[in-house]
Amino acid sequence: MSLIFTIAATDGKARLGSLSTAHGDIRTPAFMPVGTAATVKGLTPEQVEATGADILLGNTYHLMLRPGAERVAELGGLHTFMRWNKPILTDSGGFQVMSLKDICKMTEEGATFKSHIDGSTHELTPERAMEIQFLLDSNISMVLDECTSYPATHAVAKASMERSMRWAGRSKDAFKDRDGYGVFGIQQGSMYEDLRIASSEALSDIGFDGYAIGGLAVGEGQEVMFEVLDYAVPALPDDKPHYLMGVGKPEDIIGAVRRGIDMFDCVIPTRSGRFGRAYTPEGEVNIRNACHADDARPLWEGGIGPGADYSRAYLHHLFKADEMLGPILLSWHNLHYYQWLMHGIRDAIAAGKLDAFEQDYLKNLNQ
Amino acid sequence: MSLIFTIAATDGKARLGSLSTAHGDIRTPAFMPVGTAATVKGLTPEQVEATGADILLGNTYHLMLRPGAERVAELGGLHTFMRWNKPILTDSGGFQVMSLKDICKMTEEGATFKSHIDGSTHELTPERAMEIQFLLDSNISMVLDECTSYPATHAVAKASMERSMRWAGRSKDAFKDRDGYGVFGIQQGSMYEDLRIASSEALSDIGFDGYAIGGLAVGEGQEVMFEVLDYAVPALPDDKPHYLMGVGKPEDIIGAVRRGIDMFDCVIPTRSGRFGRAYTPEGEVNIRNACHADDARPLWEGGIGPGADYSRAYLHHLFKADEMLGPILLSWHNLHYYQWLMHGIRDAIAAGKLDAFEQDYLKNLNQ
Repeated sequence: MSLIFTIAATDGKARLGSLSTAHGDIRTPAFMPVGTAATVKGLTPEQVEATGADILLGNTYHLMLRPGAERVAELGGLHTFMRWNKPILTDSGGFQVMSLKDICKMTEEGATFKSHIDGSTHELTPERAMEIQFLLDSNISMVLDECTSYPATHAVAKASMERSMRWAGRSKDAFKDRDGYGVFGIQQGSMYEDLRIASSEALSDIGFDGYAIGGLAVGEGQEVMFEVLDYAVPALPDDKPHYLMGVGKPEDIIGAVRRGIDMFDCVIPTRSGRFGRAYTPEGEVNIRNACHADDARPLWEGGIGPGADYSRAYLHHLFKADEMLGPILLSWHNLHYYQWLMHGIRDAIAAGKLDAFEQDYLKNLNQ
Repeated sequence: MSLIFTIAATDGKARLGSLSTAHGDIRTPAFMPVGTAATVKGLTPEQVEATGADILLGNTYHLMLRPGAERVAELGGLHTFMRWNKPILTDSGGFQVMSLKDICKMTEEGATFKSHIDGSTHELTPERAMEIQFLLDSNISMVLDECTSYPATHAVAKASMERSMRWAGRSKDAFKDRDGYGVFGIQQGSMYEDLRIASSEALSDIGFDGYAIGGLAVGEGQEVMFEVLDYAVPALPDDKPHYLMGVGKPEDIIGAVRRGIDMFDCVIPTRSGRFGRAYTPEGEVNIRNACHADDARPLWEGGIGPGADYSRAYLHHLFKADEMLGPILLSWHNLHYYQWLMHGIRDAIAAGKLDAFEQDYLKNLNQ
């Protein structure tokens, strides 16, 4: 196989594993910080690595437009370009392209769209999406899929899912197989069980190194998302990693791991950090609130990273004074916090105590 | 003495020395990065320390308004607040206050002004400037002085200088003497030799731990500045550090060291870095220029810090994509570069080769 996935322990549906790539191993369940434009916003690669992240996510849409996939390839690939020598997963670009709406035209062939930067016209087909991710030297390429609108009728969701499955086949055909690199299929089907199962069967027939669940975290809420995961994850091949795209808050991640998810990505820790919101074991903290102005306590007592090192008063001051270091430190803190969470989840699975871990986590939040 | 200054070697008027404070020693000639609002913009204290900086400058005006000197004192002082455990020098706040013009009223007692943040009224007298710097726990306090307009007639410059000397005396009286802490006087007198000499005599009579030269770097140009330094520095006591405020570009610093200056501060490295301008041994580089888009070479071949680690193409991309990491890395590079320059200057003085060092430096620039 192109990527080797091993499962070391299970706890209910949750799995403790490792995914081996040409740039190193990814401990799963894993959280992938988002490095949209070849940078995790505000942080050096060394700072990101210090959080314990094993893998980053890059956005094909942004990188294809600027600096351009061919340019990144000329410069040695994305790892060299951004000085991140651990694994990288790239999305297919489809999600961003299809968000453009008015300036994106969809056909069976693929998507034609105008750049938000200079208005130039670009094409994104399953084959081009694979080529771009090859040029970027991404360890894990994602197939191009159609993003089903939400909510969608069964008929609309079915037609959209079926197109995505045809594109999945074309993506797999276009993927250049090589050691330490792989391609993931993406399950679609909106909130319909029969469609999720049909999608899984289609992907399984094609055969992928991993399977993502797409079309969630689109506003359906945690309860509905968990209901879908209850039937969507068991439909996927057991022996491959399961990746829930675009999720989520700490509670979402714990619940999804309990339902068999191995990989996550989300902008929440960095985006929230930029706006002054921090995650802690007690819940979310808005550091801009005046109550922090004289508080000498650290944000994260007994924790790791800048949340443990700096006082709440100092972080509050940085945000009030609109200083860059505020967003930097809170983004960094949140990434430390997320990796600490994943570490705790992995330890809990190894010990067979994930249920208790979740209960403790939620109880602390409610205090 | 409150601060101990030792001179280890001289080369012409240039001096190699060390200034000992309660928070450690400052190797001189020294460049002080500016940490206006209790942060060097965009950088963690660890990153600043990695550049080799021995001392930071903080701005009394900004800190007295936000977060407030009394609050910083409650939180353990500026070192603890911003997690910088090396020496800190603070300015008196006068320069910023007097830049407010329309909302600042000056009398013999001091300045009354309105906050740019919330419009509240504040007073800054020589005594209050000392009190604020004491509350901040600044290792080196600066006397409050009047910023003479430029250009100024001899009569205006004389009256202004004489007020500054009266304020210097009040500042010294208000300064709380303690081991490892000191207060510097500031020479004024615009571009008039007799006034600079009179000012030095007045300061010397009061007696300070160090002597600054104020009222330069106000648009007079390098040639005039050097002319003033030629007579202004020899007028200062020899056995104390000489600090040229607000200077400057690398060439300005080398020329001022040759004229007997021991300490510098300037926003140039961080401000230029935020706007995409980098200093290198070959001169200034505007990383936004299109010529860098495909350039895999580092910004600073054989150098230290991020300029040596990242390609020009990547740095260019970060600025084009408006990513925070661009300003961060170039600010950091420039601070590395400035400390590397100071290191080279100190080595050259020790070897008695500062003239050759300057010639080589200027020759490289012209290539």
